[in-house]
Amino acid sequence: MAGKVAPRCLLISNSTTHPTGYLDHCAEAMTTFLKASNVSSVLFIPFALKDCDAYTAKARDRFKLMGFDVKGLHECDDKIAAVNEAESIFVGGGNTFRLLNLLYKHNVVDAIRARVAGGMPYMGASAGTNVACKSIRTTNDMPIVQPPSFEALALVPIQINPHYLEPDPNSTHKGETRRERLEQFLEDNTTPVLGDKWTVEGKNLPIRVFLHGKDMQTFAVGDDVSFLQEEA
Amino acid sequence: MAGKVAPRCLLISNSTTHPTGYLDHCAEAMTTFLKASNVSSVLFIPFALKDCDAYTAKARDRFKLMGFDVKGLHECDDKIAAVNEAESIFVGGGNTFRLLNLLYKHNVVDAIRARVAGGMPYMGASAGTNVACKSIRTTNDMPIVQPPSFEALALVPIQINPHYLEPDPNSTHKGETRRERLEQFLEDNTTPVLGDKWTVEGKNLPIRVFLHGKDMQTFAVGDDVSFLQEEA
Ligand SMILES: [Ca+2]
Ligand SMILES: [Ca+2]
Repeated sequence: MAGKVAPRCLLISNSTTHPTGYLDHCAEAMTTFLKASNVSSVLFIPFALKDCDAYTAKARDRFKLMGFDVKGLHECDDKIAAVNEAESIFVGGGNTFRLLNLLYKHNVVDAIRARVAGGMPYMGASAGTNVACKSIRTTNDMPIVQPPSFEALALVPIQINPHYLEPDPNSTHKGETRRERLEQFLEDNTTPVLGDKWTVEGKNLPIRVFLHGKDMQTFAVGDDVSFLQEEA
Repeated sequence: MAGKVAPRCLLISNSTTHPTGYLDHCAEAMTTFLKASNVSSVLFIPFALKDCDAYTAKARDRFKLMGFDVKGLHECDDKIAAVNEAESIFVGGGNTFRLLNLLYKHNVVDAIRARVAGGMPYMGASAGTNVACKSIRTTNDMPIVQPPSFEALALVPIQINPHYLEPDPNSTHKGETRRERLEQFLEDNTTPVLGDKWTVEGKNLPIRVFLHGKDMQTFAVGDDVSFLQEEA
């Protein structure tokens, strides 16, 4: 469509990668991503953790090092207006169910979707990446609260499984492995799943792709996986 | 109330414990439990796995060794009648969300509750233990499908976290530990949580108890944790 803007999403698997500190491994990618849109401030959504003040303070300190101002969405009386006026959004990790529940409760789901559709840069880490997908059905988190729906922001037409881990062959733990969980997802769903310590513009471990009715596929960072959008 | 029957529940953490086979570690406890109610047949609920026929065949073979007949609920045209006529019920493990969704879809939640309230023996393993709790909010499973509610059978007034694992102090994995997940649960809920490789009548690892606003407590198998019902 003439004039349609491509959404800009930086979807990060982990907020922290051993052994460096909070957002250290992705600070350069975030900075490049935000500067490309001439952004100087970030609206931080801290809803995935209980203590929103402490979480926002942590994000504020880290983004200050990158040269960006941070406001916490929980601090804003009119949350829809805050989303509408944001230069960029970063949704932090924590519990995906709590996060999505509060996005619905504060009625900002549609506003975020509209802003991203209009080109506003969206960054998510872990739970913030889960809620950028069609649904939260591939989160690793515990369902500690019941959101009104598992349907999420649908900024990307696929499912991501953050910090995907291959099964430990020596484990005697009899719970499902991560791979078995995603295979169970694809028994009941057809949406493609991208699993791994993957970032859109990052350097990381191999990418795993799970498609309905097919064996798991492995890709390297930098490989073109845009075919997933066709599968979706 | 005069004539009220105490519910009989055998809630098992794992279907399999390394290195023995399916239900081997709890076969004696199950046999004792069923014989105490003069039971000769088991209605098996296989909904937590996709292939209900294969799952029921596996359960049928294992219970045959213990001397009990098995019928799969998915084989019954009138599922409410099947629950109403069952001598005992065993709900197998797999994906808790799929299981609870199908319990609601087939409209058997109220029937199971009523039968257990009337004294029918209920056995659950893993996901079958999760759905015996007030809600599925402490399951370890991936939310691959959205049930109409997280509220479950509420056969016990607490939450159980099956196959609870202490954090690996050497892990470089940055996802939440099991303990952190349950602490997050208790940030948003007040229901007591019992975590571990716990069985009502089994021999196993220490029991962990998580209460709202308190530090984790540790108990040995055989310790009296009936105070949890008062906390609930
Ligand atoms: Ca998380
Ligand atoms: Ca399971």
